[in-house]
Amino acid sequence: MELPSDALGGQGRLRQAPESFLSHELVTAISSDGVNSERRGLLRGALAAALVATSARAIAGDGGDPDIVRLPEWSRSLGKPVASNPYGQPSIYEANIVRRQSPGLTQTDQASVAFTPLQNLFGSITPSGLHFERHHQGWVDIDPRRHRLMINGLVAQPLVFTLEDLLRMPSVSRMHFLECGANTAQEWGNSAVPTVQYSHGMLSGSEWTGVPLSLLLERAGYDRTAAYLLAEGADGSSMTRTISMESALEDALVAYGQNGEMLRPEQGYPLRLVVPGLQGVSWVKWLRRLEVGDKPYATKDEASHYVDLMPNGQLRQYAAIQEAKSVITAPSGGQKLLKHGYYCITGLAWSGRGAVRKVEISVDGGRNWREARLEGSPQSKMLTRFNFDWVWQGESALLQSRVHDSTGYIQPQRAQLVAARGTRSIYHNNAIQTWRVGETGEVDNVQVG
Amino acid sequence: MELPSDALGGQGRLRQAPESFLSHELVTAISSDGVNSERRGLLRGALAAALVATSARAIAGDGGDPDIVRLPEWSRSLGKPVASNPYGQPSIYEANIVRRQSPGLTQTDQASVAFTPLQNLFGSITPSGLHFERHHQGWVDIDPRRHRLMINGLVAQPLVFTLEDLLRMPSVSRMHFLECGANTAQEWGNSAVPTVQYSHGMLSGSEWTGVPLSLLLERAGYDRTAAYLLAEGADGSSMTRTISMESALEDALVAYGQNGEMLRPEQGYPLRLVVPGLQGVSWVKWLRRLEVGDKPYATKDEASHYVDLMPNGQLRQYAAIQEAKSVITAPSGGQKLLKHGYYCITGLAWSGRGAVRKVEISVDGGRNWREARLEGSPQSKMLTRFNFDWVWQGESALLQSRVHDSTGYIQPQRAQLVAARGTRSIYHNNAIQTWRVGETGEVDNVQVG
Repeated sequence: MELPSDALGGQGRLRQAPESFLSHELVTAISSDGVNSERRGLLRGALAAALVATSARAIAGDGGDPDIVRLPEWSRSLGKPVASNPYGQPSIYEANIVRRQSPGLTQTDQASVAFTPLQNLFGSITPSGLHFERHHQGWVDIDPRRHRLMINGLVAQPLVFTLEDLLRMPSVSRMHFLECGANTAQEWGNSAVPTVQYSHGMLSGSEWTGVPLSLLLERAGYDRTAAYLLAEGADGSSMTRTISMESALEDALVAYGQNGEMLRPEQGYPLRLVVPGLQGVSWVKWLRRLEVGDKPYATKDEASHYVDLMPNGQLRQYAAIQEAKSVITAPSGGQKLLKHGYYCITGLAWSGRGAVRKVEISVDGGRNWREARLEGSPQSKMLTRFNFDWVWQGESALLQSRVHDSTGYIQPQRAQLVAARGTRSIYHNNAIQTWRVGETGEVDNVQVG
Repeated sequence: MELPSDALGGQGRLRQAPESFLSHELVTAISSDGVNSERRGLLRGALAAALVATSARAIAGDGGDPDIVRLPEWSRSLGKPVASNPYGQPSIYEANIVRRQSPGLTQTDQASVAFTPLQNLFGSITPSGLHFERHHQGWVDIDPRRHRLMINGLVAQPLVFTLEDLLRMPSVSRMHFLECGANTAQEWGNSAVPTVQYSHGMLSGSEWTGVPLSLLLERAGYDRTAAYLLAEGADGSSMTRTISMESALEDALVAYGQNGEMLRPEQGYPLRLVVPGLQGVSWVKWLRRLEVGDKPYATKDEASHYVDLMPNGQLRQYAAIQEAKSVITAPSGGQKLLKHGYYCITGLAWSGRGAVRKVEISVDGGRNWREARLEGSPQSKMLTRFNFDWVWQGESALLQSRVHDSTGYIQPQRAQLVAARGTRSIYHNNAIQTWRVGETGEVDNVQVG
């Protein structure tokens, strides 16, 4: 990897950096609004410049005049005992890294969204505490001893399972992304949202553990002519979705585990349907019933919602697979480049049809493309982190990422997507995202093409 | 996968199951002791048997006489709003799944251990909140604005980095296991600890993100004849460890990220040395200094601790690589098989020298071995989950797992390890673990060979 010497550090050269490690107090003093509080690069610059004068002698702990050089208090005292947090929490300095609801996006807070702070995250795993939320009648914390899963419909033997039954069965753990079909919805219009948390934050990557759905269907003796499945949740909305039998048999799980532990309540504890590659609404939470059937069920949430209004006025229904997509998470909207020089452009790429094969970056709005480095070995239907070295010399720039997946599909430019699908949709927007870097270093969300 | 029909569920057939989804209240009513509270299979069996009579009609929500069949309250009410937990937490029914300190293991709680509940976990990722703790003078939550990393010693140019500097540099994310060199220490003697949490719970798997250490050393212009590095932490113990330059240059990271977010304070926030494959004490937390040198430093924590007392009375020093090891996490000590029939034997395997190639299972104390299924594609120096189908018909059994790594190394039987290293060590016990299943289904920790 060839890098300019500037890439390798030097005091006080701030990156566009995430909004982490500012004290909660300081952040809320600036603004309690998640949008504005991300626009504080200048403040942070001043802060860091003041701090950089700290003597290296104090850091190394090599003594000196105690009136001038003092080790920080954490190096001079007894720390906290083990297991003082039996279930650990993030640092108090990271208290601002949270899921955020978009004010005014929905009329009720129970049928709403809280977005993942993608601009602050690393790698491909989303911490379960920051996994996005999308509920239709609020989230519930179900008593697992009172929960059951029923399989009925076109089966030889209807079955009811306790959670104990399912925990005892053969299990599988796999890493998969989960993206709401409405992620990036507001980009269909011109009202571009300010940050990647709000534009792409209905996206997460997790290790899921559960029983292959195919085993459960076999056990129930499902009708081999059945082509569909109805999945139903136990929350107040009785969320119901039609799943194709093809998806159900291919790689679906009845999951109880996420990132090594039991599912979180907001993610469907104690049972969730995992249908890799399909939009989030199909991953029915608080799963209580699977009905085998011979036609799509046309439930409320697939007839009047999660359909695409096409240019000819017709509705595109049951388009559940999330097509290949990518986004640059840093530098991204609301951040600011504080210095000229090296930046690591980083982001995520994924495909509901397979693995990421290649990610390309453009810094000139799509005229020229160069290949990014991919982290690790891309896994099927999972997030892949990409990195790209960039030296910024103060010019205006249009940053884009473009993914190629293992089927050969290439993520479309916005103009290509709009030509096919119009601009009246809410769902399934996988267009290339553009972040404009201004000459002053400010980064904004803009639409190109 | 050929499975007996019993594998596929049926009401009320409890597995040896993890201690999850019992209410915290119920568990503490039985015992506040982490050891005993795991021995509650019989109670749970009675509980589940009572619950299994619940009508399937109530579950499916198909109405009926409201005096007899009622939907649970979570299906009849409005749930909680999104972002009501901006940073999400586990279910209240999982409150018993925590890190546990071993009572009496150490004299002070700041120089002690809190173990990961391996018996309750899935997959290969350890939730950051359950990552084991091993501190030497307690844990601290460092203000990242006041923290610095210095590189000095045999370098052309000593350097001091702020966290901002490091965040701006090229980064890498990789999954690696982390195991304390003293994991399984008590198995050297005859005092076998009761559960896998205490026998093997100083073990975790995470996705780590940071700057390759080789880049930082290049930047400082390290002396090409230097063979060692001293890593120093900023906690009160000033933990210092010698790292070989070979390990430093091969794949070490100066890490700030773990499982997608900033490090947890108990894991070294804001900076930790990641040295894949090496024992945990070498992964210096709260990292503040790296000194390049020409010989090992023989610091307190590598001269009088973390050395192996050999049969001839000599000390084996600087044995930092964690050799290949595996353990069955369920069924495991303190659990109980409540029914005859199918069980999925599951566990973890890892190697500090490369990837897991194969895991074998014995149910007869090592006389016969059969190959287990590995989850996903084993990654270098990372945990690999294995599963193995087993039908238990009430016989006494001795369960063992044995890993082969990519170097051809095979995990030793206890007798083989003891023949080479005696029984007076504390560290580096990677022997095959045995769990005895009694005819009543109780599982105990025993030593074979």
